[in-house]
Amino acid sequence: MVMMKAAVFVEPGRIVLDDKPIPDVGPLDALIRITTTTICGTDIHILKGEYPVNRGLTIGHEPVGIIEKLGSAVTGYQEGQRVIAGAITPSGHSNACLCGCHSQDGAGTRHGWKPLGGWRFGNSIDGSQAEYLLVPDAMTNLAPVPDGLTDEEVLMCPDIMSTGFAGAERGNIRIGDTVAVFAQGPIGLCATAGAKLKGATTIIGVDTVPARLEMARRMGADHVVDFRRVDPVEEIMRLTDGRGVDVAIEALGTQATFEAALRVLRPGGTLSSLGVYSGDLRLPLGPFAAGLGDHTIVTSLCPGGKERMRRLMGVVASGRVDLKPLVTHRFTLDRIEAAYELFGHQRDGVLKVAITPN
Amino acid sequence: MVMMKAAVFVEPGRIVLDDKPIPDVGPLDALIRITTTTICGTDIHILKGEYPVNRGLTIGHEPVGIIEKLGSAVTGYQEGQRVIAGAITPSGHSNACLCGCHSQDGAGTRHGWKPLGGWRFGNSIDGSQAEYLLVPDAMTNLAPVPDGLTDEEVLMCPDIMSTGFAGAERGNIRIGDTVAVFAQGPIGLCATAGAKLKGATTIIGVDTVPARLEMARRMGADHVVDFRRVDPVEEIMRLTDGRGVDVAIEALGTQATFEAALRVLRPGGTLSSLGVYSGDLRLPLGPFAAGLGDHTIVTSLCPGGKERMRRLMGVVASGRVDLKPLVTHRFTLDRIEAAYELFGHQRDGVLKVAITPN
Amino acid sequence: MVMMKAAVFVEPGRIVLDDKPIPDVGPLDALIRITTTTICGTDIHILKGEYPVNRGLTIGHEPVGIIEKLGSAVTGYQEGQRVIAGAITPSGHSNACLCGCHSQDGAGTRHGWKPLGGWRFGNSIDGSQAEYLLVPDAMTNLAPVPDGLTDEEVLMCPDIMSTGFAGAERGNIRIGDTVAVFAQGPIGLCATAGAKLKGATTIIGVDTVPARLEMARRMGADHVVDFRRVDPVEEIMRLTDGRGVDVAIEALGTQATFEAALRVLRPGGTLSSLGVYSGDLRLPLGPFAAGLGDHTIVTSLCPGGKERMRRLMGVVASGRVDLKPLVTHRFTLDRIEAAYELFGHQRDGVLKVAITPN
Amino acid sequence: MVMMKAAVFVEPGRIVLDDKPIPDVGPLDALIRITTTTICGTDIHILKGEYPVNRGLTIGHEPVGIIEKLGSAVTGYQEGQRVIAGAITPSGHSNACLCGCHSQDGAGTRHGWKPLGGWRFGNSIDGSQAEYLLVPDAMTNLAPVPDGLTDEEVLMCPDIMSTGFAGAERGNIRIGDTVAVFAQGPIGLCATAGAKLKGATTIIGVDTVPARLEMARRMGADHVVDFRRVDPVEEIMRLTDGRGVDVAIEALGTQATFEAALRVLRPGGTLSSLGVYSGDLRLPLGPFAAGLGDHTIVTSLCPGGKERMRRLMGVVASGRVDLKPLVTHRFTLDRIEAAYELFGHQRDGVLKVAITPN
Repeated sequence: MVMMKAAVFVEPGRIVLDDKPIPDVGPLDALIRITTTTICGTDIHILKGEYPVNRGLTIGHEPVGIIEKLGSAVTGYQEGQRVIAGAITPSGHSNACLCGCHSQDGAGTRHGWKPLGGWRFGNSIDGSQAEYLLVPDAMTNLAPVPDGLTDEEVLMCPDIMSTGFAGAERGNIRIGDTVAVFAQGPIGLCATAGAKLKGATTIIGVDTVPARLEMARRMGADHVVDFRRVDPVEEIMRLTDGRGVDVAIEALGTQATFEAALRVLRPGGTLSSLGVYSGDLRLPLGPFAAGLGDHTIVTSLCPGGKERMRRLMGVVASGRVDLKPLVTHRFTLDRIEAAYELFGHQRDGVLKVAITPN
Repeated sequence: MVMMKAAVFVEPGRIVLDDKPIPDVGPLDALIRITTTTICGTDIHILKGEYPVNRGLTIGHEPVGIIEKLGSAVTGYQEGQRVIAGAITPSGHSNACLCGCHSQDGAGTRHGWKPLGGWRFGNSIDGSQAEYLLVPDAMTNLAPVPDGLTDEEVLMCPDIMSTGFAGAERGNIRIGDTVAVFAQGPIGLCATAGAKLKGATTIIGVDTVPARLEMARRMGADHVVDFRRVDPVEEIMRLTDGRGVDVAIEALGTQATFEAALRVLRPGGTLSSLGVYSGDLRLPLGPFAAGLGDHTIVTSLCPGGKERMRRLMGVVASGRVDLKPLVTHRFTLDRIEAAYELFGHQRDGVLKVAITPN
Repeated sequence: MVMMKAAVFVEPGRIVLDDKPIPDVGPLDALIRITTTTICGTDIHILKGEYPVNRGLTIGHEPVGIIEKLGSAVTGYQEGQRVIAGAITPSGHSNACLCGCHSQDGAGTRHGWKPLGGWRFGNSIDGSQAEYLLVPDAMTNLAPVPDGLTDEEVLMCPDIMSTGFAGAERGNIRIGDTVAVFAQGPIGLCATAGAKLKGATTIIGVDTVPARLEMARRMGADHVVDFRRVDPVEEIMRLTDGRGVDVAIEALGTQATFEAALRVLRPGGTLSSLGVYSGDLRLPLGPFAAGLGDHTIVTSLCPGGKERMRRLMGVVASGRVDLKPLVTHRFTLDRIEAAYELFGHQRDGVLKVAITPN
Repeated sequence: MVMMKAAVFVEPGRIVLDDKPIPDVGPLDALIRITTTTICGTDIHILKGEYPVNRGLTIGHEPVGIIEKLGSAVTGYQEGQRVIAGAITPSGHSNACLCGCHSQDGAGTRHGWKPLGGWRFGNSIDGSQAEYLLVPDAMTNLAPVPDGLTDEEVLMCPDIMSTGFAGAERGNIRIGDTVAVFAQGPIGLCATAGAKLKGATTIIGVDTVPARLEMARRMGADHVVDFRRVDPVEEIMRLTDGRGVDVAIEALGTQATFEAALRVLRPGGTLSSLGVYSGDLRLPLGPFAAGLGDHTIVTSLCPGGKERMRRLMGVVASGRVDLKPLVTHRFTLDRIEAAYELFGHQRDGVLKVAITPN
């Protein structure tokens, strides 16, 4: 049994680099040699025990790598090809997938739907913070990286960019819309970039960290609001002449940001929620217009699949959006515990880290 | 000054029939002689003081009548024509209207949006429980009643039918969907009928009143659930083989029904809310999938305007839906206080009352 | 090599029952023993040489049957289960599929799109008019038949019903719409039924055969127009008071019906085309409003995949639509040449034939 | 009777500057003193007699001006305010408007729909190439110009920008789409800019004039194709690796461009047509996939109304798009015949002219 290094969840508070066997390749799988991966905010929730996973699981869901071995039934790819796969790896064949709801893929269930079922890497199967990664349903999920794009340039595609853009897409932003984006961490920054890509012409970025507000401007925010200095609801109502925003995007996962998003929403507007919440949410009666405001609230789990990845890499290649500044720190895999330490405590202005092999 | 009878809000607990002047007709208005109107659940909220309106206001927002007088700038209608107008009377020219958001019409505001702004009758201007009604923006709102339809046949169009159908429409029901409708009062019954009209093939009606559940079957429910006898969430999950429903419609306005609607929703499903809530709502973490379920929550205020009314009367004329059984009691206007007494206490199996002139 | 009977295309003008080997089952396939199938209008095009296929191909794309053998990588099914598969068998994993465009599935192409690529049975691979059928990508395509539904009740699901309903769905029919359906053959009849299911309240069926117009009424047409007796454009403009229809569905595939559909369309309306055309089409300047009418023209190839099949069988089970009357004649497989003779010449009032094993 | 100067259609081949009375102001109207206007390609069609209008009509539909006088029933504006109105001036209250189909406004017709009915300026009523313009339904149509924007900066909003963007919007362009825009005149250039605003990441501009191709690059085209040098269909198929484009926009109004747009469209793609055609169009069988390609063809007439104008001015104010380079020449009103001469013959690299008072 050939072994590899992998970042493994041991117990709440401990993710360690350990030895695990390189996995066997089933007929529909592909084995990828990871060349770059990263750590996600969700991984920190796992580390802290706030999101439960099995002990012994390899963490990580943002892979860039080289095809090492293809399953016997996989066609259309070559070993040695450079690829990415989405954080979400839908089967393509469940009832949920066939309805266009790939992230809630229930392949293997009786009826074909499963909440969050498309999220497998670092959740229900071993993930990408390792030397090798087994990609299930490879033909649905492997997307070749165009020549001319570096690993780091496509590193945001599997999750951060796909999720952030989904906030703008599911919010159904139209040309000329006014949009507020609550929180400007990596996903909020991508939501800001996505809002601009969709044609929003007034984008208001909200956060508390000056460096993130500055990055928000680079990603397309026309105004930034530091909610440690001003009340963001008052400020946004002032900026919109009392009307509110057409679309409010929540990108943190707290009652405060969710509620502020609702409070700044114009009647008939859309609240597009990306955050991972850790408790019940409250919809206050007034801002919710007692249920009569023609509001829409949508939540989104990161869209995956190779066509999504192809499109996002196309965005990168076009130069429309430049996410390279989001990678602020770099580590080799053998120093991943240090990377967790830095990223988990948001030290040194970290936005995202790149993890490469030793 | 010529006088008329009108049902006037005096103070919480008191709506009385009183004398008021017949209103003057402005250039864009039309004066309608009411031939049939009704009382809405919302009027009971007003009566109880739960929804505040000005003292002295005439109540009612569901008019059928005859054009008595047209404003000087109104063209395309004749005096003597039989018409209805929606409960919501949009101006047609505000920014909200021009975005298709007619119910949140902010004509007269600086920016053109106002929560619930399209609802004027019996809310911000005098309503239809009177001998005469002044219809603003008449060219946007008056819809001629086709020959061959009786007053009672079109009496549900202005509000109940428009609202209930909106629950199905905004829920984006597709052919083959499974839909649960929580509460089978007049609006819930119309939501059930609307779900069937949109092609839902499994409709589950939920209520506690056997007569309403029976009526739900007549309107299209394939299954009915009495939530005094069984847990509706368990029962609906059983009926859907554990998958949940594609669309859940809330038609009551309580935490219990809203939450049950969320709990039976499949991942990626839509909760379409019609109820008027009287307190903050809670979104429980698990059923909300921590914000990762690709859910959509939409609220709707009754769509108005003459084109909506034309379409709804077309539905009635087609025989696709028969709402006549919803009118269970009839009163003349001079007995409207008795009608409030009956309807407000839900006595005698009342669903809707018809109010006609003396 | 075990042999079976199959209806094979020999040359234009000749489809004959012949012996062929029962196919081998690959890892993702399933072998189905056909219990009922049928002949489609498209098969007649093939027979006449108007639509080219390879010589020696087994014809037919509407299978009902029993799983005889499952591929080694197929999970979630049992041998002996009764299933259907759509006329279109998408892979689920191509770029086209992942965009929701399953019928234009380009699995195996460089970029993932192929015109009509999802249509494989009786087109690019052997079809269902045989004792056995090999279903590719079985997990994407096999839909178990609910207990209580007969073979004949679900026989229209794979193609006729899926295609006809798509005409209504892609036309985006809304509650209260007026819809004209041009031609009332099996697909037009299903489009009529689909228009009713979607909430159209005035449906106008057009054909020349009295029996089909009578069947159109059973499927939901409120008016029928015999275009051998009246000019259908004039008659529909009269029925719609000069406005035209919201949605016009073309279900034949000729210039005359396509053009009439455009001529009766209101400004801003949708022409939903289902027909298979055999020559260039002309868009006349006036009815096309010189390109300024805000028109939408959509074409649809039959949607496939197991979720589509599940939904359509749900429609049948609900009793909302009764397509049993469409099966007018029955043959055993050894008499399929006689079935082609009858169906190809539209003799004896035939709508659809059922073909069962000897 | 006070007189003004106006560019009047006399007969095919002759538009002359003439004296006309300043119009009276009805209750819903506003009189605008024109400060800047322009000439549209459509005006050249009128000049040539290719699009018929009444003799004596004032031409022009792109007004920037100052409110001179408000009708008695108009509220929400002040005399002296700087405003624009769209080329299309919907009433806001017809059935078409209430369906969201404002450009096909049939106010005054029996049923409320009229092809191109929203286009009134310089078509059915006097237009903007004059000292004064009467704006009907002023509350629906007048949009105040934000401080800080010059006349020339908003001069494209009433028509060119609204139409061009509509090509991108109606094409339903999504993030990551590949889009081809056929013809790079003013409308095609705005369609290119609109495609970029909507998130297209590969935009291919097609024209024959090098200066226009150069401008296409400034507006967002990633590739330009000179179809006098190469076959545009071959070139676009090469650029898209054989797949074709997701959305093809036609912005000229000829068979050649329409057909090329269809030929480069991928299966399931959308052809968004903006051109004004002058003859029947042909849909060739192969590229139309015999009606089985899941294609969508949409046509658009310029969207109007004050909310549309507000949004487009917001785009200008945001700096997302800079259309100032499109104004290549300037004339005073008394030299408008010379402006027609230049613009009509496309001399001197003209894109758009600005016409200002003497």
